[in-house]
Amino acid sequence: MNQLVKKIAVIGGVEASDLVSEIAFKVGNEISKQGWHLVCGGGSGVMESACKGFRFGRNELDPVRVMAIGVLPGDDADLANRYVDLVIPTGIGIARNAIITRMADGIIAVGRGSGTLSEIAYGWQMNKPVAAMGESGGWAESLAGKSLDNRRDDVIFKAATAVDAIDYFKKKFELI
Amino acid sequence: MNQLVKKIAVIGGVEASDLVSEIAFKVGNEISKQGWHLVCGGGSGVMESACKGFRFGRNELDPVRVMAIGVLPGDDADLANRYVDLVIPTGIGIARNAIITRMADGIIAVGRGSGTLSEIAYGWQMNKPVAAMGESGGWAESLAGKSLDNRRDDVIFKAATAVDAIDYFKKKFELI
Amino acid sequence: MNQLVKKIAVIGGVEASDLVSEIAFKVGNEISKQGWHLVCGGGSGVMESACKGFRFGRNELDPVRVMAIGVLPGDDADLANRYVDLVIPTGIGIARNAIITRMADGIIAVGRGSGTLSEIAYGWQMNKPVAAMGESGGWAESLAGKSLDNRRDDVIFKAATAVDAIDYFKKKFELI
Amino acid sequence: MNQLVKKIAVIGGVEASDLVSEIAFKVGNEISKQGWHLVCGGGSGVMESACKGFRFGRNELDPVRVMAIGVLPGDDADLANRYVDLVIPTGIGIARNAIITRMADGIIAVGRGSGTLSEIAYGWQMNKPVAAMGESGGWAESLAGKSLDNRRDDVIFKAATAVDAIDYFKKKFELI
Repeated sequence: MNQLVKKIAVIGGVEASDLVSEIAFKVGNEISKQGWHLVCGGGSGVMESACKGFRFGRNELDPVRVMAIGVLPGDDADLANRYVDLVIPTGIGIARNAIITRMADGIIAVGRGSGTLSEIAYGWQMNKPVAAMGESGGWAESLAGKSLDNRRDDVIFKAATAVDAIDYFKKKFELI
Repeated sequence: MNQLVKKIAVIGGVEASDLVSEIAFKVGNEISKQGWHLVCGGGSGVMESACKGFRFGRNELDPVRVMAIGVLPGDDADLANRYVDLVIPTGIGIARNAIITRMADGIIAVGRGSGTLSEIAYGWQMNKPVAAMGESGGWAESLAGKSLDNRRDDVIFKAATAVDAIDYFKKKFELI
Repeated sequence: MNQLVKKIAVIGGVEASDLVSEIAFKVGNEISKQGWHLVCGGGSGVMESACKGFRFGRNELDPVRVMAIGVLPGDDADLANRYVDLVIPTGIGIARNAIITRMADGIIAVGRGSGTLSEIAYGWQMNKPVAAMGESGGWAESLAGKSLDNRRDDVIFKAATAVDAIDYFKKKFELI
Repeated sequence: MNQLVKKIAVIGGVEASDLVSEIAFKVGNEISKQGWHLVCGGGSGVMESACKGFRFGRNELDPVRVMAIGVLPGDDADLANRYVDLVIPTGIGIARNAIITRMADGIIAVGRGSGTLSEIAYGWQMNKPVAAMGESGGWAESLAGKSLDNRRDDVIFKAATAVDAIDYFKKKFELI
């Protein structure tokens, strides 16, 4: 078994208010400070803000190689936002939501949207740790602290801040 | 363009109470009475009850050829419930949820579960008519009458009965 | 376990010479005469000719309900050829080739093309019976009678006629 | 548009002779020397040898961050070979072959097998530059220098050595 760098999926819509963009930026920023990869859908809105935050958080002198990974629905790599380091154009449409959650070690939901909702649901069904930013509105805020069904004993972790969410994952990964 | 028989996806979990099973049975039953195909995940619980209701509602003398279609996550066709007429073992895991909603002309949610939730979200995102059985508990009941996000002006139709749901789809299909 | 109607995938390109179209027509025709479903990519060329042959071979008075199933790469059901009875728009692009072969009980290759080649390879890898029309040119003709690798002891069956291919599948299905 | 690091897919079977393993090692080695990512199915055989060669070719002092990316069919990241840097467990089975070729900027086939064959076919169909190691046996050797169908004017590039293959991609990428 590989001792691999952790991967955190940041999920959220293509539209984002200033507040939600700022939250997404901080989330991405904290992920790179941990030396973890960021995974997202590679588009605009929450995804772009998270990737931008990730880039600015990354320590360029650090030997740990971490990347913002954009898993696109279509087959055109040029449609990724400019802060994506590794573009994965899948060509399988929004069925790629299942791959984003499958490849992630943990999932953070930021804000609204039905795309976000399908990914929260997938993350839960795949038994991944799921956190939701409690102040970000939309499905993330609605489902923070909730159970989606009785297959799991835990709940979606309600994170007040990006650091909160990171701490939740560190506990889940048994790093603290 | 083909004038094709309509396909309705019935989505719901592998576990179902007696009440939910009965609702699923009636939903399947009404779909076959309309001469429409039923699409589902092909498993037990809500899916099996719906397929059973479908089989008993089908007029065997009717020249309209309708089928209960089971779109399985795995590659073993034998895992379909016994009321499935056409088994589609996909081998793509729960990414097949995207195909169930993509191939359907309309979607009915019955009861609970995170799998159901991801399919409701996909149906909404794909701009399909989505109905939810209002008395069936779980995510179906919670989301009945709600909007998932602002990409659409309508809401998830809250159906009191199976006939209600059918009437909703007939209006959407401009059949009445 | 269900006693299900068999499904045969007919694979071939969107372009087809008159000879190849005629072969595809006969293959589709014989499949429906057996009371089996036909599965294909739902497009033009070999796929359309096979579906057309299927429609003309179907005994409309027969209680066995068989269908020409078109598994499309895109999400627009209207792009299916007009002889498809059941359209499955997948939205997953040519990754749908894996689903066509996965859902089939047997596979017949007609003619040329790299799409056909990927499906022959998938059929072999999934351990399905694969036949190739020996006179149809392209990859079907080149690979007829050949082994693709040593995971299997058999070869791709070289069929001189559509009836030949059907007989091969009947033996494989232990129907004769 | 991003100026992204190129990604080369190395495709080949889980079984590999000593000769084929050596070829795969050299191919992986040259890819990392170019500062490109390597993409593969993440398993044993050709995939493992290529990833191993990649690791030993990587200049650890180089600021270019390149990775051996393993795109697994299943959902268990622990099944990746130990030289994979970034594991993508897809959970979509061998339909993931379509994603490997879709995400790659160029494809190198090494050796035998029907899995390799489906990926060569996909690469061709997706209009990617495809090279095949001419001395590696199996489908790679058989198809080197050949056209798969008339959708393209070129052929699968026959590479005598790993450096040959790299030069072919550099020309295609207009780097020389």
